Amino acid sequence: MSNAYAVIAGVGPGTGRSIATRFAKAYPVVLLARSGESYDSVVAEINNTGGQAIGIATDATDRSSLDAAFEKISKELFPGRYLAAAIYNVRPNGRPSLKPFLDLTLEELDSSLNGNIRGFFHFAQRVVPLLADAVKISNHPPTLIVTGATASTRGGARFGDIAAGKNGQRALTQTVAREFSPVGVHVAHIIIDGAIDIPGRENIYNHGPDSKISPDAIAESSWHLHTQPRSAFTHELDIRPYIGRF
Amino acid sequence: MSNAYAVIAGVGPGTGRSIATRFAKAYPVVLLARSGESYDSVVAEINNTGGQAIGIATDATDRSSLDAAFEKISKELFPGRYLAAAIYNVRPNGRPSLKPFLDLTLEELDSSLNGNIRGFFHFAQRVVPLLADAVKISNHPPTLIVTGATASTRGGARFGDIAAGKNGQRALTQTVAREFSPVGVHVAHIIIDGAIDIPGRENIYNHGPDSKISPDAIAESSWHLHTQPRSAFTHELDIRPYIGRF
Amino acid sequence: MSNAYAVIAGVGPGTGRSIATRFAKAYPVVLLARSGESYDSVVAEINNTGGQAIGIATDATDRSSLDAAFEKISKELFPGRYLAAAIYNVRPNGRPSLKPFLDLTLEELDSSLNGNIRGFFHFAQRVVPLLADAVKISNHPPTLIVTGATASTRGGARFGDIAAGKNGQRALTQTVAREFSPVGVHVAHIIIDGAIDIPGRENIYNHGPDSKISPDAIAESSWHLHTQPRSAFTHELDIRPYIGRF
Amino acid sequence: MSNAYAVIAGVGPGTGRSIATRFAKAYPVVLLARSGESYDSVVAEINNTGGQAIGIATDATDRSSLDAAFEKISKELFPGRYLAAAIYNVRPNGRPSLKPFLDLTLEELDSSLNGNIRGFFHFAQRVVPLLADAVKISNHPPTLIVTGATASTRGGARFGDIAAGKNGQRALTQTVAREFSPVGVHVAHIIIDGAIDIPGRENIYNHGPDSKISPDAIAESSWHLHTQPRSAFTHELDIRPYIGRF
Repeated sequence: MSNAYAVIAGVGPGTGRSIATRFAKAYPVVLLARSGESYDSVVAEINNTGGQAIGIATDATDRSSLDAAFEKISKELFPGRYLAAAIYNVRPNGRPSLKPFLDLTLEELDSSLNGNIRGFFHFAQRVVPLLADAVKISNHPPTLIVTGATASTRGGARFGDIAAGKNGQRALTQTVAREFSPVGVHVAHIIIDGAIDIPGRENIYNHGPDSKISPDAIAESSWHLHTQPRSAFTHELDIRPYIGRF
Repeated sequence: MSNAYAVIAGVGPGTGRSIATRFAKAYPVVLLARSGESYDSVVAEINNTGGQAIGIATDATDRSSLDAAFEKISKELFPGRYLAAAIYNVRPNGRPSLKPFLDLTLEELDSSLNGNIRGFFHFAQRVVPLLADAVKISNHPPTLIVTGATASTRGGARFGDIAAGKNGQRALTQTVAREFSPVGVHVAHIIIDGAIDIPGRENIYNHGPDSKISPDAIAESSWHLHTQPRSAFTHELDIRPYIGRF
Repeated sequence: MSNAYAVIAGVGPGTGRSIATRFAKAYPVVLLARSGESYDSVVAEINNTGGQAIGIATDATDRSSLDAAFEKISKELFPGRYLAAAIYNVRPNGRPSLKPFLDLTLEELDSSLNGNIRGFFHFAQRVVPLLADAVKISNHPPTLIVTGATASTRGGARFGDIAAGKNGQRALTQTVAREFSPVGVHVAHIIIDGAIDIPGRENIYNHGPDSKISPDAIAESSWHLHTQPRSAFTHELDIRPYIGRF
Repeated sequence: MSNAYAVIAGVGPGTGRSIATRFAKAYPVVLLARSGESYDSVVAEINNTGGQAIGIATDATDRSSLDAAFEKISKELFPGRYLAAAIYNVRPNGRPSLKPFLDLTLEELDSSLNGNIRGFFHFAQRVVPLLADAVKISNHPPTLIVTGATASTRGGARFGDIAAGKNGQRALTQTVAREFSPVGVHVAHIIIDGAIDIPGRENIYNHGPDSKISPDAIAESSWHLHTQPRSAFTHELDIRPYIGRF
């Protein structure tokens, strides 16, 4: 195993778990989530199957919490190792409201702005210098991946809060890509356009076999992005189930 | 003159002044800006040339300040009148930083999110019900116009803070359009893709005659949007000078 | 009336008629259509209401037919006059097939490519030099307008032939805009996103009052585009009814 | 090796060769190009390194030539086998003109329309039914991949002919995706945004190491698309070098 590690911010039972598991095949992984409840089982699963995983309870939208996590990583956990990949999969605290625009509260809007834009801002400012430092030594170009959604590309009825946050997040991702791609850091955005097949939620949005996106497939595409050489970076790809309007 | 009025939020010497002057040919206009310094001369100009204009010192990004302004409008200034058009042209407090991503501060990011997203959120929640109420009596479909920028459609190097705010604003505008167009409210977004020809700044970004966008032309296009019948709404148009890459 | 004229290619009872009528308020207009049947009543209407209109039976997708028409214009009809505006509103010969992809014939595809791309190619090569010649003398910047459709921006099920032609047409319009905007020629594309309210077809696609786009409104927006100064060109706008998904 | 095969239309020394070589690791591959000169060395290379490749001289833009090729495949070469993947990488005959719009000839425009739109139309009508037939037996969802370019998404100065053809091709690809994705056929479009690193052309567009796109990397991404399960189809991804404006 290489002298590298990966960080996944936003780990629950769905996409975060799958990405962590996939990247753990190549790197020790650090899992960030607000509470151990979210990542404990994933950490155990990875460690029990030959990988190496560590969870740190972190509010990725809070600078000092994030600083403490990276301090711990560089001083205690992985001194001397380089950061090969960082994934920002943080969901805003609380469920999407799906409220009509006039019923939206400022708190709901702020929750989206905080989780999607400010949180990514903090995270990217922390990891981009580490990724840039790793350009010359990393096996694959150091990679920052952001998981977006349908609402990342436009507004839609009842998606005001989400769309404002996700569109802003995507634009900020593009900014980071344009500034750091020339340095050799690969910054990519995934548009996840559909419901994700999360264990325990089988009956939600279920329109038949494979009608919900496999989080393992999102993880495979994330890994593929990471393996692209610097002459052939993909900056955005969409992922959606075979059925459903698009 | 009709039994209507228009509100322009964000009035300085450039686009806001031109839009206010243009709409004042048809409606009494209320001008909102953080301080009278910004709108005093525009108010005087309109009132001296046969129009009717009133300025209210308002922080359009602050709910209670905005509430007070609309309270004043409906109780004192124009009781019984309907709102025919509302324009959101607010610029975040302070100049765009144009800083490299790693140098951006949270304060700079927040300034953009506040002026572009939160401010528009408050403004739209205030005016949309008034516009909806006016659908059956307004001469032209009641209209909400948002002035965007190049950075409204993508991120760019050194545009992280601006792009996050403007992309989020555009997505929120699209949400409002999708929810209230079926009611008959016209919601439109203008992509202003270039420098604006603001009096007193002749030497900035000057690449020859007409190389900067005439704010009066933006105002004419805004007025054109307002006059479109409900069978033919334009939801977005771009405006840029004849020279310059696009 | 000015020393100018306008040309509208593709004139029937809908958009072409409305645009011709609108531009005839300012300029003598030349109407091109495959047969007089299409434009005779429009020519009569304009001439009977104080305007000046001439129809020329022309296949705008055929270079020699188009050459003959412009020869006639410059030699016989309007020697010495300049071309202020040209509108390409040609529809491919025959109705859209709306066929599933596997049922489409090459003839149907070619009909779309011919009317949408090759025809516009010929038309633009004819009019752009004339428009460029008029830059210094025209009251408004000389303008080339192309009427597109929903299918101009993406492919859709059963829209293979149309989408291929309209996307290609839009891309070619953008090319012409990028090459000739710096010269002062205004090239604009209108996305007509919905059914047009054409006299005699009241019962088709009718979802209530104003559910179909007023062709007169398209004409007003076309005229507005023409009046924009060169510091403030709009290159694309969408037009759609207030109801209907978008 | 499975009971399947793959077809690559448009095989020269660059992308086509790399894709053929990559897919040959899993399937016997059929290579189509106008003349054996284009594919002979690739066929030899694959057969010499443990794969199975057959070239058929075919004008993929000509229906009868294409019919003959598929007749040969199904009757002689691979009777009983299913088609797992088809790649359309055909370049129009002749080099892009890169001419100013007014200098473009109809022949140059037609060459682009023929290679990009009509050719893909024929190819897709041939392969889509075969791919649909393979849905239930194929290891990975049967896949149709189209290689696009920067000019697939917009027009640009001196790119009139190319942009018309590539935008039309992309729209037609989207149509096929929307019609056949629900059946389980994966249709994907790759935007190749930059010069490709083709052997023998090292000195063209060379801006330093890795400044041109590795065709092998395009092939890896194509293979990745093919391996995505039907719950997680990517319909479009961009590929560009780490340096260069985007």
